[in-house]
Amino acid sequence: MIVGFIGFGEVASTLTKKLIEGKVEVMTSIEGRSENTKKLAELSGATVLDSYVELAAYSDILISTVSPSEAIDVAQNYGTLSEGIFLDLNNISPISTMVIANLFDKSDDDISTNFIYPKRNSDKFIKGAIIGKISSPNSVIYLSGYNAQKLSFLSDCGLNIEIIGEDVELASYIKTLRSIYTKGVTAITYEAFSAARDLGLAKELCETLVLTEGDKMEDLAKSRINSFDGTKNRKFQEMGEVLEFLDYVYDENEFKSKFSMTNATKYKFES
Amino acid sequence: MIVGFIGFGEVASTLTKKLIEGKVEVMTSIEGRSENTKKLAELSGATVLDSYVELAAYSDILISTVSPSEAIDVAQNYGTLSEGIFLDLNNISPISTMVIANLFDKSDDDISTNFIYPKRNSDKFIKGAIIGKISSPNSVIYLSGYNAQKLSFLSDCGLNIEIIGEDVELASYIKTLRSIYTKGVTAITYEAFSAARDLGLAKELCETLVLTEGDKMEDLAKSRINSFDGTKNRKFQEMGEVLEFLDYVYDENEFKSKFSMTNATKYKFES
Repeated sequence: MIVGFIGFGEVASTLTKKLIEGKVEVMTSIEGRSENTKKLAELSGATVLDSYVELAAYSDILISTVSPSEAIDVAQNYGTLSEGIFLDLNNISPISTMVIANLFDKSDDDISTNFIYPKRNSDKFIKGAIIGKISSPNSVIYLSGYNAQKLSFLSDCGLNIEIIGEDVELASYIKTLRSIYTKGVTAITYEAFSAARDLGLAKELCETLVLTEGDKMEDLAKSRINSFDGTKNRKFQEMGEVLEFLDYVYDENEFKSKFSMTNATKYKFES
Repeated sequence: MIVGFIGFGEVASTLTKKLIEGKVEVMTSIEGRSENTKKLAELSGATVLDSYVELAAYSDILISTVSPSEAIDVAQNYGTLSEGIFLDLNNISPISTMVIANLFDKSDDDISTNFIYPKRNSDKFIKGAIIGKISSPNSVIYLSGYNAQKLSFLSDCGLNIEIIGEDVELASYIKTLRSIYTKGVTAITYEAFSAARDLGLAKELCETLVLTEGDKMEDLAKSRINSFDGTKNRKFQEMGEVLEFLDYVYDENEFKSKFSMTNATKYKFES
């Protein structure tokens, strides 16, 4: 069994460590990647190949962990080349997931007629979504797709995986719904504590909220506030994709009336 | 020691029970109140007087537990009559609290010059804010005001009280800041789960959120969604008062740029 990674950042290097500990052979290529990525790849214990074409040919499971904007190109150029499973682990929207699904499924159905569960599941494409930080022992990888159970060996490597269904878009629906909640709460937390700081009452607000929101609230709030500035551009982009998806699913009036908070969340992250 | 209640709904009847168990004498009046209130008062064990004027005269501590819209009138008509402590326990905004504070403090300072900590604390007026549901054993009553420590006997009656400072508005600042957060999260929760339900993934969204938001998230989310329709009018009003306060504290541009989520929260509760 050979697992190949296209893109070798934090996700790939964390997974590579676990896979190698679990006696799985890991390969990657550093074709066109940054110096930083090259270093990570060389230190990881993965075999480093010259090209992605070669990597796609060797891999039983080819995993895409690139930036969201590269995900479709990677699927098209290398995912479809591979004879094995192609797993997209990028934080992409359901619409991008559907675009990739269509690369693997050449049937002529009109996708718009059955969007929510399109059932266009090839044998090869699996969508994954990482819930939580990959470095956290509590993170879970949601997997969806017709052959998602073929990745169940990942749990033998100490990864928390959950196979959530055969419909390949499921993992990205759940990730999107989760974004509505978590990024919305981040935006609200930032706003409430900004007012509290101005009034000199941030500590008191935190103590008060812990009473009814639970102990975990304090750490979550601190992490949300501290990461706000450093992640706002990425979150603004992601919320744009969330809204694009909702706009696609709902008719215009419903979209406008049902998602006013989600829309406000997007603009809270605007620079 | 005689405690008198103006208004006899759930808060007053819950507190009366504890006070009587703690050997404190409780009085109220049902002048002009509804049949329901009359019944609650008569069953409670409180002494029922004919008029509020009489009640104000007898009470060492006069507590106002009416509807927010009546709070200022009650303070003006009866609170200022009493020789004892006047405790407002209504869910009113910092602006209404300030209006009441001014009824008890006849100094000529321009309040607008030192709004955030106005220090206009009379010996008599104490502001209280109930955090959580009064019926819950975890609820806490925040008290602020120059003589707030005079109410520390309430903890001997099994009430969780916390004296948070001498500045009488403090309790209502904290309640307001808390509203920005809790009502904002309610609005986001409703929106995220509305989309999840439409996609048939409400259970999955909940399971996913519990992973990172903590166990308490599930009960909180259910309670927020289930109470949404029944409480939206009240919450719309309350968010209006929150925004009125923020508009007062901040200049126009800051108010607009800093509180977009809070503004969206208000309109989420609009009928």
